[in-house]
Amino acid sequence: MHAYRTHTCGALRASDAGQTARLSGWVHSKRDHGGLLFIDLRDHYGLTQIVFAAGSVAFETVDRLRPESVITVTGEVVLREAGTVNPKLPTGEIELRAATVEVQSVADVLPMQVAGDEKYPEDIRLKYRFIDLRRDKLHRNMVLRSQVIASVRRRMIAAGFTEFQTPILTASSPEGARDFLVPARLHPGKFYALPQAPQQFKQLLMVAGFDRYFQIAPCFRDEASRADRSPGEFYQLDFEMSYVTQEDVFATIEPVIAGVFEEFAEGRSVTKPPFQRIPYEEAMLVYGTDKPDLRNPLRITDVTAQFAGSGFGLFSKIAASGGVVRAIPAPGTAGNPRSFFDKLNEWAREQGAGGLGYIVFEADGPKGPIARNLEPERAEAIRVACGLSAGDSVFFAAGKKDEAPKFSGLVRTKLGQDLGLIAAGRFEFCWITDFPMYELNEETGQIDFSHNPFSMPQGGMEALLTQDPLTIKAFQYDIVCNGIELSSGAIRNHRPDIMIKAFEIAGYTAADVEARFGGMLNAFRYGAPPHGGSAPGIDRMVMLLADEPNIREVILFPLNQQGEDLMMGAPAEVPPARMKELSLKLDLPPKLKGGQKE
Amino acid sequence: MHAYRTHTCGALRASDAGQTARLSGWVHSKRDHGGLLFIDLRDHYGLTQIVFAAGSVAFETVDRLRPESVITVTGEVVLREAGTVNPKLPTGEIELRAATVEVQSVADVLPMQVAGDEKYPEDIRLKYRFIDLRRDKLHRNMVLRSQVIASVRRRMIAAGFTEFQTPILTASSPEGARDFLVPARLHPGKFYALPQAPQQFKQLLMVAGFDRYFQIAPCFRDEASRADRSPGEFYQLDFEMSYVTQEDVFATIEPVIAGVFEEFAEGRSVTKPPFQRIPYEEAMLVYGTDKPDLRNPLRITDVTAQFAGSGFGLFSKIAASGGVVRAIPAPGTAGNPRSFFDKLNEWAREQGAGGLGYIVFEADGPKGPIARNLEPERAEAIRVACGLSAGDSVFFAAGKKDEAPKFSGLVRTKLGQDLGLIAAGRFEFCWITDFPMYELNEETGQIDFSHNPFSMPQGGMEALLTQDPLTIKAFQYDIVCNGIELSSGAIRNHRPDIMIKAFEIAGYTAADVEARFGGMLNAFRYGAPPHGGSAPGIDRMVMLLADEPNIREVILFPLNQQGEDLMMGAPAEVPPARMKELSLKLDLPPKLKGGQKE
Repeated sequence: MHAYRTHTCGALRASDAGQTARLSGWVHSKRDHGGLLFIDLRDHYGLTQIVFAAGSVAFETVDRLRPESVITVTGEVVLREAGTVNPKLPTGEIELRAATVEVQSVADVLPMQVAGDEKYPEDIRLKYRFIDLRRDKLHRNMVLRSQVIASVRRRMIAAGFTEFQTPILTASSPEGARDFLVPARLHPGKFYALPQAPQQFKQLLMVAGFDRYFQIAPCFRDEASRADRSPGEFYQLDFEMSYVTQEDVFATIEPVIAGVFEEFAEGRSVTKPPFQRIPYEEAMLVYGTDKPDLRNPLRITDVTAQFAGSGFGLFSKIAASGGVVRAIPAPGTAGNPRSFFDKLNEWAREQGAGGLGYIVFEADGPKGPIARNLEPERAEAIRVACGLSAGDSVFFAAGKKDEAPKFSGLVRTKLGQDLGLIAAGRFEFCWITDFPMYELNEETGQIDFSHNPFSMPQGGMEALLTQDPLTIKAFQYDIVCNGIELSSGAIRNHRPDIMIKAFEIAGYTAADVEARFGGMLNAFRYGAPPHGGSAPGIDRMVMLLADEPNIREVILFPLNQQGEDLMMGAPAEVPPARMKELSLKLDLPPKLKGGQKE
Repeated sequence: MHAYRTHTCGALRASDAGQTARLSGWVHSKRDHGGLLFIDLRDHYGLTQIVFAAGSVAFETVDRLRPESVITVTGEVVLREAGTVNPKLPTGEIELRAATVEVQSVADVLPMQVAGDEKYPEDIRLKYRFIDLRRDKLHRNMVLRSQVIASVRRRMIAAGFTEFQTPILTASSPEGARDFLVPARLHPGKFYALPQAPQQFKQLLMVAGFDRYFQIAPCFRDEASRADRSPGEFYQLDFEMSYVTQEDVFATIEPVIAGVFEEFAEGRSVTKPPFQRIPYEEAMLVYGTDKPDLRNPLRITDVTAQFAGSGFGLFSKIAASGGVVRAIPAPGTAGNPRSFFDKLNEWAREQGAGGLGYIVFEADGPKGPIARNLEPERAEAIRVACGLSAGDSVFFAAGKKDEAPKFSGLVRTKLGQDLGLIAAGRFEFCWITDFPMYELNEETGQIDFSHNPFSMPQGGMEALLTQDPLTIKAFQYDIVCNGIELSSGAIRNHRPDIMIKAFEIAGYTAADVEARFGGMLNAFRYGAPPHGGSAPGIDRMVMLLADEPNIREVILFPLNQQGEDLMMGAPAEVPPARMKELSLKLDLPPKLKGGQKE
C-alpha cells in the first residue's frame, strides 16, 4: 500500500465500500459524538468523513490534534447509514473507519480558521496566506485563474499564435508609468528596468518575422495600488499580429475571449462575436464614457438644441456658450416621491456638479422645476428624442463640452444601479474604436497626443499632411466588458516617416524622436511589417469570472496596498556589503535618518 | 481582397494555379534574369517565388528595393515550368506573377544578411537581434522552444498539475546564489529581490493544499555567464507534489520528460521510462561523476586492491595511504602507436594530474611501464576485473579518495570522445539518487551539509539521532541527460523538529535556524504535507533538442556575456531625480569617478 494514500479525499464512492483505503489530508473539522470521533479529512480534491472508535490508539492520537494537522489514515470504506448520507458531498455516501493513523504534521494554534466563513483582517490573511489559501473560495479562485490562463493559452495556440518569453531584465520604457529599477552589479551606476509591458519586444518580434506572438506576460509598474490593479506586478494576455487590419485583430481575439468566458460562465451569458464596435465619439455621447457597461440599458441623448434659446435660462446660456446638455432617461420614475429626485440632486452636488435637473413626464404633461420654465413643445421634443413615455423621467447633465458628457455617464451608471437596471449574470463585451489621435491641451493651446503616440493614424501620411489634426482618428481600440476596460490595443505605426511627421504635429523635432525612440525607429528601418495587437488584462478577466471586486482575491501571493509582502517580509533592508557590491549608498529622507538634516 | 494577404508565403500549391493571390513578406533574395526579376518572398510560414516582368511598374518599384524590404504583391498563381520546379520548397511547384506591388517598408543597408549562412560577430547579432531572428536556424530554434514549452505544459496539466504564477517581486533567498535587488520606492532603504527560484513559494503552495503545482518559472541569478547559463534570467519547469515518495516523483515526471523529448526527437532515440536510478556512490565509482553521460559505454573499475602491496611502488603507496586507483578501459587500443598513450599522458598533466599510467594487454601478456613493475597475476586480475581482452588497454587514475574518482571521470569522457564511442542521436536519461546528507569539511574538520539542507534525511529523525552523520543519505536526486544535469530535486523536510536536528548536526543552534529560515519553519507549524519536487531547466532541454551548445541560441533576446542588452541599451544610467525618488545615491568605485579618491 502507498505510504500516503490509495485515494484522494474526493475519490471514494459507495462502490468502494468494503475496500481498505488510505487517505492523507488536513483535519478540516472534528466532531466528538460520544464514543465516536468524526473528522472531515480535506485535501485539494475534496472532503472525506473519517470515523474513529473510542478506545483505539487512532482515537487517542487524533483526539489530541488540532484542526489543520496533517494525518494519514488507513481503514475500511463503509457505507453511511441512510439518515447520515451527505448529498452535498461527492464522498457523502461513505465514510472511512480508521484502523490506524499516522501524524504527518502537528498544527499549532491557528491564527485563522480554515473551515467556516469567519472574516479576518487583511494583514492576517496576507501574513498567513498559506492558511488563507486553504479556504474554499480563495482556493477555488486560484484554480479558476489557472484554468482561465490554460484555456487562453490553448485557444491562442489553436489560433496560430506562438508563445515567447520576452526579457524581464530590460531597459527603461520611454513612455508610460514608473519602472522598477534593478541595479546592475557588473555595471556600476547602471540599472536594468522591469518591463511595464513587453510592448517594444512584441513589436520587435513582428519585425523579426514571427507573425503571431502571444504571452501571458508579467508586467511591472511602480504605481500606487488600486482595487483593480495590484501594486508591483500583474499579468496580461499580450499579443501581436503581422499583416493585419483592425478588423483582423478583432475577428481573431473575439472568439478567444468569448470562448474563455463561455467556458467559465457557469450559466452567465456572454456576448457572441462579433462584439459591437462603438466609435469613441458615440461612446462619449450615448454612454458618457469610453468604458460603457452595456448591461445598463440607459442611453444618453444630446438635447442641447432643444434647450438652445429656450425659456430655461441656465441651460439656454450653456448652449449659447458652446456647452452641451445631455439627457439621461429614468424610465418608470414619474411616480417616485420628491425625495428620489432630491437625493439624486444631492448626490450630483457631492460629485462636484451644480445639481441634477430633471423633467417628470406625467400623463398630463411635463412637470418639475425645469418644465415650469421650458416651452411645452420643447419638453415634448425632449421626450420624443429620448424615446420616453408618460410615467418616465429624464435627468440632465449640462456644462462644458469636455465635462458634461463625463458627468452624464456617472448619472447613467447611478440611475442604472439605483433603479436596479444592471442585469446580473451577463458579460457584455464591446470594442471602443476610432480614438482621436490628438487633442487640444487647453492650458498650453498646443496639440498633444490623445493616447498612444505609436498608433497608426487613420489615413496615414495623407491624413497627417492634409487634415486638421484634431479630426484625425487613430487605429486604436479598447475592449470593454461590463464597464471594465480589459485592454487597449492598436494597429501600430510601423513607418518611420509617418512617425516623425506624427510627432512633429505634437511639437517634437525629428531629433527629439530619434533621441527618445531611436531603438524602435531603427528596427523599422530594416523591413517592418504592418502589425497590431492588444493586451487584455488577465487579472481583470479572472476578477470578472470569479465575481471578485478586489484583485487580491485572484492573486496567489499579492503584495498589500503598501506594496509589502507580509508573509515573506519584503521589501527588506539589505546588508551594507550588498550595497557596496551594487555601488550604491542609501540617501534616506531626513525623517528616516532620525531627524538628522541633509 | 484582404489588404495584405490572401495566403501566407508557405501556402500556395499547384492546385492554386490560375487563382489571383496576394502575398506579403520580406524580400528574401532577388535574382535578375534578363527581362525577369525573381524574388523569394519570405514570411514566418515559408518562401514563395515571385516573378516581375521587365517594364512593369511593379518591376521598377521592386528593382530599387534592398533585400529585407517588406512588400505586398498581387498577381496570378502559375505553375512553374517542369525544369524550374523546386522540390525542396513546399511552394516550389508554383510562382506568383506580380501584377501590382505595394511597398510596406523600405529596408536600409543591412548590418547582416538574412539569406545565406554567413557568420557574424556576436555583438552585431545581439544588437540587431530582430534581424538575426529572421535567419532560418535561429527562427526555428525559437519556434522549437515555444513548442517544447507548450508540450511540457500540456503534459503537466494532463498529469494533474495546476500552473500558478509565484511572485517576481519578493524577498531575498536565504540560500544559494546572489539575488538581483529592486529598490522599493515607497519603503526608503528597503529592497525587493527577484526570485532565484520559486522554491519557498512552491513549498508554501503545498502547505496551502494545492497538491500538484507546476510553473514555467522565470528565475534570476546575479551570477557570471556560462555556456549553459545565461546571465540574468532563465526558465525552469518548476514542480512540486504532496503526499509523495521519491519514486512517485520519478514515475510522474519521467513520462513528461521522455514524452517531450520523443515529440521533438526527429529520429533520435530517447530513454524509455523508468530511467535508470544510479546511487551517488555508484555514479562516482563507475562514471567518476554525478552527471554521467550514459552514451559513453566505458565503465570505471576500482583496482585499489590489485595495486595494494604490489610491485608498482607509486600506486602501492597511494593504496597504503588511503588513496584509490581507478581503471578506465580503452577497448581495442592495444595496437595504437606510442604517441596515443603519450598524448593522453600530456593531456592528463594539463588537467593537473601527475600523468596517466596504463597497461596494454597484448596477446602475449600485459605491456607498458606499469606492467614492467607489476606482478603478472595482478595485471591479469585487473584485466579480468575490467572485463578486458587481449587488444585492449586500461588507464589508471590514482590519488586521494576525493580527487582520483573525479579525474577518472575526465579520463572516461576523454577516452569516450577520442575513441569515438559517444553515440550521436541519443538522449540517455538517468537519475542520480542517495546523495550524502553531510560531508566532512576537510579544512575545519566540521560536518557540513553536502547539498540541500532542506531535503529529508533518509531514515528521518531516527537516522539523525542514531547514525554516523557521514553515512546518512538524503532523499535528493538529480536528473541527468547525456552528461548534462537538468535539475536537482528532493523530498523536502517538512518537519520542524527534524529540520532543527538536521541543522544542529551541521553546527547551527535552533535560534540560528529560526532566525534564518523562520518563515518556512513557521509555515510548517500549521499543518504541512510531506512533499517533494524538482525543476528541470527549460533552456537546457531546448539546447539538447536544438543541438545547440550555446544557450544564447535558444533565447529570444539574451543578454550578452557581460549582462548587457545591446539592442535595448540595458543596463543604463538613470536620471538623478529617479535616484532621489528611490532614496539612493551612487557610490561608484574610484576609477569610475575619474580618478577621484574616496
